[in-house]
Amino acid sequence: MSEVATSEYALTTEPKLKNFVSAVLQTVGVKQSDAAVVAEVLVAADLRGIESHGVARLESYYVSRIRSQKLKATARYEVVRETDTSIVYDADNGLGHPIGKLAMESVIRKADKHGAAFGAVRNSNHFGIAGYYAMLALEHAMIGMASTNSVRYAAPTYGKDIMLGTNPLAFAIPTASEPAFVLDFASTTVPRGKLEVYQRKGKSLAQGWAIDSQGQPTTSPSEALQGALLPLGGYGVENGGHKGYGLGLLVDIFCGVLSGGTFGNSLPLPNSKPQPGAISHWFGAFRVDGFRNVEDFKRDMEQELRDFRTSATAPGQERIYTAGEIEYEKAEYHKLNGVPVHIKVWEGLRNLSSELGLPFDVAQ
Amino acid sequence: MSEVATSEYALTTEPKLKNFVSAVLQTVGVKQSDAAVVAEVLVAADLRGIESHGVARLESYYVSRIRSQKLKATARYEVVRETDTSIVYDADNGLGHPIGKLAMESVIRKADKHGAAFGAVRNSNHFGIAGYYAMLALEHAMIGMASTNSVRYAAPTYGKDIMLGTNPLAFAIPTASEPAFVLDFASTTVPRGKLEVYQRKGKSLAQGWAIDSQGQPTTSPSEALQGALLPLGGYGVENGGHKGYGLGLLVDIFCGVLSGGTFGNSLPLPNSKPQPGAISHWFGAFRVDGFRNVEDFKRDMEQELRDFRTSATAPGQERIYTAGEIEYEKAEYHKLNGVPVHIKVWEGLRNLSSELGLPFDVAQ
Repeated sequence: MSEVATSEYALTTEPKLKNFVSAVLQTVGVKQSDAAVVAEVLVAADLRGIESHGVARLESYYVSRIRSQKLKATARYEVVRETDTSIVYDADNGLGHPIGKLAMESVIRKADKHGAAFGAVRNSNHFGIAGYYAMLALEHAMIGMASTNSVRYAAPTYGKDIMLGTNPLAFAIPTASEPAFVLDFASTTVPRGKLEVYQRKGKSLAQGWAIDSQGQPTTSPSEALQGALLPLGGYGVENGGHKGYGLGLLVDIFCGVLSGGTFGNSLPLPNSKPQPGAISHWFGAFRVDGFRNVEDFKRDMEQELRDFRTSATAPGQERIYTAGEIEYEKAEYHKLNGVPVHIKVWEGLRNLSSELGLPFDVAQ
Repeated sequence: MSEVATSEYALTTEPKLKNFVSAVLQTVGVKQSDAAVVAEVLVAADLRGIESHGVARLESYYVSRIRSQKLKATARYEVVRETDTSIVYDADNGLGHPIGKLAMESVIRKADKHGAAFGAVRNSNHFGIAGYYAMLALEHAMIGMASTNSVRYAAPTYGKDIMLGTNPLAFAIPTASEPAFVLDFASTTVPRGKLEVYQRKGKSLAQGWAIDSQGQPTTSPSEALQGALLPLGGYGVENGGHKGYGLGLLVDIFCGVLSGGTFGNSLPLPNSKPQPGAISHWFGAFRVDGFRNVEDFKRDMEQELRDFRTSATAPGQERIYTAGEIEYEKAEYHKLNGVPVHIKVWEGLRNLSSELGLPFDVAQ
């Protein structure tokens, strides 16, 4: 599982990294309980091997926006609508993680009482990995769902305007033994960061990842960075690009329109100034025992996932995975052997600590 | 909109085609009310331009299975579990459409009372287009969801065993004026029928559609027909094939595992004998007004969809569509100008009518 070149990564531990993130956020005015949630969600991403959504964003997104007063360190969350099975929050342009967790926990409480519930949050900011929130349902023997819209990066099928975020959808389904089924995927073929990595390495993109500024398919990272990402399924309809486009727009409706928040081409572009509270989230949960006894369901889930994992591999392939399995194994490995942080991110954290007058007690 | 070559198609009308389908089914023992639902769902597919799921299947699937006693003409549907916000039916190996509609209507009634609800059906058969059931929520100012598992056609990412159906997911979201947002998509890149069409025409497949029997990507229709379809996103993970695989497995869990029905590699293969009641369905609905006033929501939906439809097109493209728009326009056109039925299907229906001693009063 140690897939990272050690020379490029420094190692920390889960508690040390959480403590550091929490201390940084408290220094810029975030209250302790909120800071702890942000730390939990960011470090969960690094544990699961999703570096792009982990502590790499601490300074560049959260801290820098708080310091430039584009994001409120202490926001006053407000419930703007509530029924037995629904809740809508206004996040007051605060951090996305605490309100995301609060909203998903409300949805779970309502689903616990009534069987099923949904929720949404508007006027929020980047909330980290959607899978974190969906997974909160697992210990309650519920199926969890979570989603968020985002800064715009992608063009619709047949289009060239940048209209859609990476708009992820996450579903978490409980099993008898770990790992659970956790599907957490962006509705674009690849994230924008991948174009930047390919540009840095001088590599060509695969077909189906992006278009140039004229709307033509391109394999040039620099042209793509001036153009737009493509939805899952790629260019046009031949490989189902209209399906990824449909999923991306579904997410924007669930998050932006349903919450009464920002949606469509009112969302910010990558190079535009930070737009306060432009991001919205959506959550759902329902009880497994509304359908079957939980034990029977979990037994069949084990069978289902095992059938896939033990099915025959294609030539040159070692394993068939089920959704969330790779991330689960990485998290277990990193908890035991240390959490890798890219040295550029590590140096950024070190600089941040000295700037804020905080000890940099992060090394494993 | 008249995209079909008239020489290959005969024209009928919606009422005539429905009457004919209903008469055929009643002749083989289906009660009038059930026959009317099957006719409604099949003709809805032909109206919307989804020929593969319309009357083309009347003889080859439904009637032939009823006559060979692989599918019950008169089934006794049973509620096997029910709460305020959930319901599970056993379809008794009956037709999928009447129980599908019954289940979605139950879910809508429960959502009307409690805000949100889900349902599932096991021991069923092919139910036509998933979008039909999701769309039942629209007139109730709810968001509808529907899904079904199917005969297996696709391999998981990195695998070569045929493990997954085309497993569609459908979402319907109401708008102030037609067309609504209706996303109804298979979680494979293409349907199996597309491989057969390409074989007949001697054309090569696109990359990302299928693998051969050894699990290697192929563009040969005949090799692909011996192999497996690929999930949305194609081969491996480069273009997100793991996302389509995850969606396909999600659908199999929602339908097969949650209902207590057949799932995973217990589902039939394309060339295996009909397996009674192997198919399961899943449904969901929630009220828009749990989130916002319906009028505000619909107004913003109009804005959202218009923003996409009026965004700039890529070179050589005429229009940007939103999900369900093409199908809506086809249905409107076909209602006015006649419903096209492929001449091979038409001749099949004519033969069926003479065999059953029914008048063939179908021509426009």
